[in-house]
Amino acid sequence: MKLTRAVPVATVLLCAVPVFAAAPPAPTAHRPPTAGEVLAASTAADWRALDPQNTLYLELATGRVVIELAPEFAPNHVANVLALSRGKYFDGLPIERAQDNYVVQWGDREGKKPGGTAHRTVAAEFERPLRGLALTRLPDPDTYAPEVGLVDDFPVAADPITGRAWLVHCYGMVGAGRGNDVDSGGGTELYVVIGQAPRHLDRNVTLLGRVVSGMELLSVMPRGSGPLGFYERPEQYVPLKSLRVAADVPAAQRTNLEVLRTDTPTFVAYLEARRNRHEEWFKVPAGRVDVCNVPVPVRPAAGGSATK
Amino acid sequence: MKLTRAVPVATVLLCAVPVFAAAPPAPTAHRPPTAGEVLAASTAADWRALDPQNTLYLELATGRVVIELAPEFAPNHVANVLALSRGKYFDGLPIERAQDNYVVQWGDREGKKPGGTAHRTVAAEFERPLRGLALTRLPDPDTYAPEVGLVDDFPVAADPITGRAWLVHCYGMVGAGRGNDVDSGGGTELYVVIGQAPRHLDRNVTLLGRVVSGMELLSVMPRGSGPLGFYERPEQYVPLKSLRVAADVPAAQRTNLEVLRTDTPTFVAYLEARRNRHEEWFKVPAGRVDVCNVPVPVRPAAGGSATK
Repeated sequence: MKLTRAVPVATVLLCAVPVFAAAPPAPTAHRPPTAGEVLAASTAADWRALDPQNTLYLELATGRVVIELAPEFAPNHVANVLALSRGKYFDGLPIERAQDNYVVQWGDREGKKPGGTAHRTVAAEFERPLRGLALTRLPDPDTYAPEVGLVDDFPVAADPITGRAWLVHCYGMVGAGRGNDVDSGGGTELYVVIGQAPRHLDRNVTLLGRVVSGMELLSVMPRGSGPLGFYERPEQYVPLKSLRVAADVPAAQRTNLEVLRTDTPTFVAYLEARRNRHEEWFKVPAGRVDVCNVPVPVRPAAGGSATK
Repeated sequence: MKLTRAVPVATVLLCAVPVFAAAPPAPTAHRPPTAGEVLAASTAADWRALDPQNTLYLELATGRVVIELAPEFAPNHVANVLALSRGKYFDGLPIERAQDNYVVQWGDREGKKPGGTAHRTVAAEFERPLRGLALTRLPDPDTYAPEVGLVDDFPVAADPITGRAWLVHCYGMVGAGRGNDVDSGGGTELYVVIGQAPRHLDRNVTLLGRVVSGMELLSVMPRGSGPLGFYERPEQYVPLKSLRVAADVPAAQRTNLEVLRTDTPTFVAYLEARRNRHEEWFKVPAGRVDVCNVPVPVRPAAGGSATK
């Protein structure tokens, strides 16, 4: 029996961003700071509270999923989803689809539920002008687009020649399912990416937000055995308790979150720490980073400022 | 109430490769074939049966996960994991970690279980010579590596200047956890990628295989609440019933699978159909594809040829 005692595996694959960890050791003169060290050294001004008027709470039996909406990219879809939420359209509707390495999706597959003042369909919002966006560009090549980066905490691609920009399908992004007609979506069916970024969907379907908290409640949904991962039996459906606009929820019941600003020197340092990891475990820093491997850190808001 | 009847959402996000679907309509003169059409037109020679001597069955209470090993890339780790499996090392050990958008991991965290003739640690096999590999290169730029492509059905990166090649961390890839010492892994702790490809791990840890069937059993594991997604209470552990070499399993109990060969004109056509999707739903073909968005198709073997 040749086995010797194993090394401590708690240090294996150290990668999670320890936003809430105790203060790490200070960076030494020998190496640049790690992501954890950059965040530990951040100030209140490096963070931005979520806007409760553009934040949704998806309530499941297992807990709350927090979704930040992206009105800069899909203003009409966002307005429609806000109206649907306020009309309690989603309450009681099921998660009806979970396709492995792809998406979970909920909504009214039969399309029969009344929607209050909302619309069943909204014209596509696949892209928008690049002009007017504060895009923090990533320095590394992207397989799919001429430029990629972040606008606030949303992953974005852009083409400076056409002057167009669009949200990209990273893990946790939320989109509006549609049929073959490009204008047949509207937010009554919403999906969330739960696997490898399906970037071939970029500019083919309207993205309107991202999950900033609670992804682990969606990503574990049992995968559906029907075509495209749809559940085949109604008893497999997972009902939504409700989908609410955060601003409509009493302040004491809100989940007040802040996201790291992406237009600051702190973010540039964080990005560099993601491109080249200097934690002891790493031996070969990648020197590059994919836009979908830069999840923007989220933390509880200090002093509940998100409720103001 | 302005809602009109919804479009059929069963057509939403059509992307799954319908390997087993009924024969699709033939490609028209107006467009190239879809991936489904390429596969429907494939012949037996386009497929390769898995080698039972390099295939593992991970048995869970919920079903079987099939893992194809990669001895061309990690011969010593593969030999060690085969020895561990044959020594029943993994039987009864737990899945002890599930970190969202990252990995699930199983093994003997305490490092106390005897391993028969296997080793606790094996020298790192992070990369190998590019020479001698039949690499089917992808034509599109990769963020992380000078070249990417496929060797058999494994995703691979290469640097023609250094002459080195390595497996990459796509969804479903299986690796050997290690501590801070690069040579401290060996296969007693195995992890599987369950989210966005963590490509920064490439060349930092030994990959030794990929899950070809049953990913949906691993990807739904409840996420651990401890640091790095480790479960904090023993009752959360999910025990492995067993991990067996397929060749050691009676023929009648095997899962006989074939994978699409990647060194054929059929695969080139399949790849092109993934780069530019011509299904009716798509409006803007991407024109590009990421190496981690080319999962090589798997199907039940015709006539049980994998058991020969």
